[in-house]
Amino acid sequence: MTLAQPRPYRGVFPVVPTIFDETGGLDLEGQKRCLDFMIDAGSQGLCILANFSEQFVLADEEREVLTRLCLEHVAGRVPVIVTTTHFSSRVCAERSHKAEAMGAAMVMVMPPYHGATFRVGEAAIEEFFQVVSDAIGIPIMIQDAPVAGTPLSPAFLARLATRIANVSYFKIETAGAATKLRELLALGGAAIEGPWDGEEAITLMADLDAGCTGAMTGGGYPDGIRQIMDPWFAGDRAAARAAYGRWLPLINHENRQCGLITAKILMKAGGIIACDDVRHPLRRPHPAAEAGLLEIARDLDVMALRWA
Amino acid sequence: MTLAQPRPYRGVFPVVPTIFDETGGLDLEGQKRCLDFMIDAGSQGLCILANFSEQFVLADEEREVLTRLCLEHVAGRVPVIVTTTHFSSRVCAERSHKAEAMGAAMVMVMPPYHGATFRVGEAAIEEFFQVVSDAIGIPIMIQDAPVAGTPLSPAFLARLATRIANVSYFKIETAGAATKLRELLALGGAAIEGPWDGEEAITLMADLDAGCTGAMTGGGYPDGIRQIMDPWFAGDRAAARAAYGRWLPLINHENRQCGLITAKILMKAGGIIACDDVRHPLRRPHPAAEAGLLEIARDLDVMALRWA
Amino acid sequence: MTLAQPRPYRGVFPVVPTIFDETGGLDLEGQKRCLDFMIDAGSQGLCILANFSEQFVLADEEREVLTRLCLEHVAGRVPVIVTTTHFSSRVCAERSHKAEAMGAAMVMVMPPYHGATFRVGEAAIEEFFQVVSDAIGIPIMIQDAPVAGTPLSPAFLARLATRIANVSYFKIETAGAATKLRELLALGGAAIEGPWDGEEAITLMADLDAGCTGAMTGGGYPDGIRQIMDPWFAGDRAAARAAYGRWLPLINHENRQCGLITAKILMKAGGIIACDDVRHPLRRPHPAAEAGLLEIARDLDVMALRWA
Amino acid sequence: MTLAQPRPYRGVFPVVPTIFDETGGLDLEGQKRCLDFMIDAGSQGLCILANFSEQFVLADEEREVLTRLCLEHVAGRVPVIVTTTHFSSRVCAERSHKAEAMGAAMVMVMPPYHGATFRVGEAAIEEFFQVVSDAIGIPIMIQDAPVAGTPLSPAFLARLATRIANVSYFKIETAGAATKLRELLALGGAAIEGPWDGEEAITLMADLDAGCTGAMTGGGYPDGIRQIMDPWFAGDRAAARAAYGRWLPLINHENRQCGLITAKILMKAGGIIACDDVRHPLRRPHPAAEAGLLEIARDLDVMALRWA
Repeated sequence: MTLAQPRPYRGVFPVVPTIFDETGGLDLEGQKRCLDFMIDAGSQGLCILANFSEQFVLADEEREVLTRLCLEHVAGRVPVIVTTTHFSSRVCAERSHKAEAMGAAMVMVMPPYHGATFRVGEAAIEEFFQVVSDAIGIPIMIQDAPVAGTPLSPAFLARLATRIANVSYFKIETAGAATKLRELLALGGAAIEGPWDGEEAITLMADLDAGCTGAMTGGGYPDGIRQIMDPWFAGDRAAARAAYGRWLPLINHENRQCGLITAKILMKAGGIIACDDVRHPLRRPHPAAEAGLLEIARDLDVMALRWA
Repeated sequence: MTLAQPRPYRGVFPVVPTIFDETGGLDLEGQKRCLDFMIDAGSQGLCILANFSEQFVLADEEREVLTRLCLEHVAGRVPVIVTTTHFSSRVCAERSHKAEAMGAAMVMVMPPYHGATFRVGEAAIEEFFQVVSDAIGIPIMIQDAPVAGTPLSPAFLARLATRIANVSYFKIETAGAATKLRELLALGGAAIEGPWDGEEAITLMADLDAGCTGAMTGGGYPDGIRQIMDPWFAGDRAAARAAYGRWLPLINHENRQCGLITAKILMKAGGIIACDDVRHPLRRPHPAAEAGLLEIARDLDVMALRWA
Repeated sequence: MTLAQPRPYRGVFPVVPTIFDETGGLDLEGQKRCLDFMIDAGSQGLCILANFSEQFVLADEEREVLTRLCLEHVAGRVPVIVTTTHFSSRVCAERSHKAEAMGAAMVMVMPPYHGATFRVGEAAIEEFFQVVSDAIGIPIMIQDAPVAGTPLSPAFLARLATRIANVSYFKIETAGAATKLRELLALGGAAIEGPWDGEEAITLMADLDAGCTGAMTGGGYPDGIRQIMDPWFAGDRAAARAAYGRWLPLINHENRQCGLITAKILMKAGGIIACDDVRHPLRRPHPAAEAGLLEIARDLDVMALRWA
Repeated sequence: MTLAQPRPYRGVFPVVPTIFDETGGLDLEGQKRCLDFMIDAGSQGLCILANFSEQFVLADEEREVLTRLCLEHVAGRVPVIVTTTHFSSRVCAERSHKAEAMGAAMVMVMPPYHGATFRVGEAAIEEFFQVVSDAIGIPIMIQDAPVAGTPLSPAFLARLATRIANVSYFKIETAGAATKLRELLALGGAAIEGPWDGEEAITLMADLDAGCTGAMTGGGYPDGIRQIMDPWFAGDRAAARAAYGRWLPLINHENRQCGLITAKILMKAGGIIACDDVRHPLRRPHPAAEAGLLEIARDLDVMALRWA
């Protein structure tokens, strides 16, 4: 499997939603169409099994089916990041090793956490990432997000980047992301191969100004995010700002109103997938929020609504 | 003191920042200019001593000085909401009674909370609001925000509105605000005199669609929020949506990059106040975030930059 | 598989620790000895795959191996509760169905949660438990613990007990457990087949006074907990209180100093198991805490130190 | 005002409850009797305005009345620690300065926090304590408790002790207190004048083993805590352990069942104070919990029940 894109990876790497059928089972054909659309829509890479993929409603066996299916179907068209977070160092290392063997370009991992209360300290977190790194030969992206309930200081993240071979990408999704990216870059220097952001791009412009080189957004409109990032990387900040302002209502609606179902609603409305259900007990947003999403998406002429 | 505006109150009621001088003391002259600007900029009402006013860095005596000064200086030009939150039912009732005596049009109150761990149950919360209501003859706005760490269900809020005489306004600042506003209105009916939102207007369009009639925003650009709400109340949703899209970059920058200092940065840049410091140990955002704020504000020609 | 004990289940149902070898793999022979000891030490039932079993460091496949091994090895000597918590209603129902098929007497389930932030509301929680209940014919114990980050009011728990066929046991591990047990019993009546407590028995005496009929404790000294509960059920409260006072230093040391490794330290010191490691990145307590544990355990002549 | 006790302060420094009358106002005569009892019962020092004093239901003016009354009434019989926590560096410094002027031997301060969400980073926390230290000439005790929602690492606490003149006492009330005390002592050395614990003494034995020299307990039974600490300081660990085991049921009942009202229930039952109400909306525990408290206290013949 040949990955065309040279490192460092940069650009738009959206999260691939997991597609279910109406019985709540995996819809593997829908999943493939979803991947094809996302690549056609301009994704420069993809991330599977993230929280926006509803990874926390999947059984381990389903994770493995999806990992294999996605890597085989993408077949090197773009690099694929596989989320392999698990509390156990051993299980995370095994998952990561398997993902690499199947063709993953990178793994994304959060520090160990379980529920509202189980957390470990910095020394244990460092050991955890060392164990995972030792098991693989591809980069690790540390996901720094509130869901982990584990504050990670810029100094600690920079130390991990410096000390642990494969820790080199960072998705910063905490409050004050732009400032954290600046501090991380100042402290970690060349060890920070990929200072990225997430959160549906709601802070993308500030994060680009701060030195961010990649965005892990929702999966519904990579075409829109490209309109922001392409001029940015071409040195045209004014055009990037204008595009950001144009797409902000949609980004904001995803960030605050519809969340992880956003990409699936757009794909279903556009005929890409047959069912946009989230897995129970997750719930759809209010019908008005879904209607508002489609209204904004139509205004912007998103590709998802006309690709199929 | 005559309040021109009839009830129900509706429209833009921004939070008044507390103005400090360079020694960290209250700047009462600056405070008055701030109030004058905010009224001139189109505020249909004001709220003092909110969290965006840094109420949590003030001593009780300073709260009283500010309450008196603001109510006397506004002098009925617009209705003023005074935040009187305190854990103790007795202290909150006394503060609220004093605020009414000084001319407050409404009090804003959160349920009792202290730090990360002290909370009370629904029965005690209901008694708390009953005690406060019994002490006054003006409406109570319940502030439903994450800072209180107290989930308040729509059913419980509606029950409070129905059972307690003065509980009639609700500022919903939690995740899923639009849906919560819809449920609150469905359950509480006419007892919900004011279904409002907050959070710097980042969810304003969805909340208006859900039935929201007031917005408690930051204090820096009431002129901008008016451009959204005036057409909305005039029945022109398309114009409201267009204005919301136009102002969203600034709203988003306040919500995610600059926070409670936003209004003061704009007022200082416009010559309205001499010092825009927050009180220690609060800190200014990164200089790039401040520069980004002014860049967006200039694009939008906000009144704060040209009023003085 | 014949379960001797008639329902309602009551008494001491300790959590079975998961036994690892020095490489971090499952030690199935050690696991069997652990089970034999726990039954000999007076456990009236057992619970596997709980948080004190380090369930959150296991892969799904390991869960299944452990479930099968434990149920086959216990072979009906005492009833076994299998923890089957998962965010997904579908996955939790499947796990629960499999556990029943293998011989589980009950399943223990927390409401859906993931990390610090993903939670669902009461309506979704009720549907979740309905789906799980519909998949099985054995009782469900709802675990009400801070780790789930989901406050469950007594009224809501009682409603679940009344409405959902198999929801009938409740392990209350939140602050104010005794008062919650009283309210639950007052509201749920006969639908509350098993009002239990947990938390290593640190609140056991108050909870027994409140009507608790079962305790899910740590696995290291069922013999000690029996000394409290046997006189209690025989109507001798004074003897129960005296025994509680005697065992409290050990209970407290487990609750506050050594946590989930407590049972394994005692079993290793007593020669029951060869390795008492927790799985990485979990860590052992300070050596002084381990020494303190053994000092107290020796004073009390716990069976674990002399059984092998 | 002469303080007999030489530094370093050590021993039992219980929290003084705030005494209210039946209208919810301050009961200053009851407050004085409470102080007299606590000194007679063996307190080696006292702490006022702590969370167990319900400081968060008091207005600033009441804090000042209580500070003055307590310091004047104690009149140097024992050293008094005054809690002066406030989010604002300026307000905390002023409160601390006033407390010293009135005769406080020490101030106790938490890092800045407000509600569930307002926190500041380590650099700002260090500045905060510097500002407070610069305003006074008495020691500062940093209270490290979950209520502040601010994890303070042993390394950071040791740094504060080393760098800031008056920061020299530490009350560790977080999970793993004993281990934290050990690390703090290893890192901070002689700068750690007072490594103390709190939490009603529930971890006292482990903390003494770890090097703790003072305990800030509840106010109801200093006589009991003295029975543990006196032999400890006399080098008789076995007697200390035996006493700890004897008092543990009462300590545990306070820690888990009755909380901050415990001292007042005992004082009222013993005729020391006329009213043991907590201030609304705080609530009394269940009557069974109160009865359980008195049952255990009578078994132990606590002085509060026979002093008056």
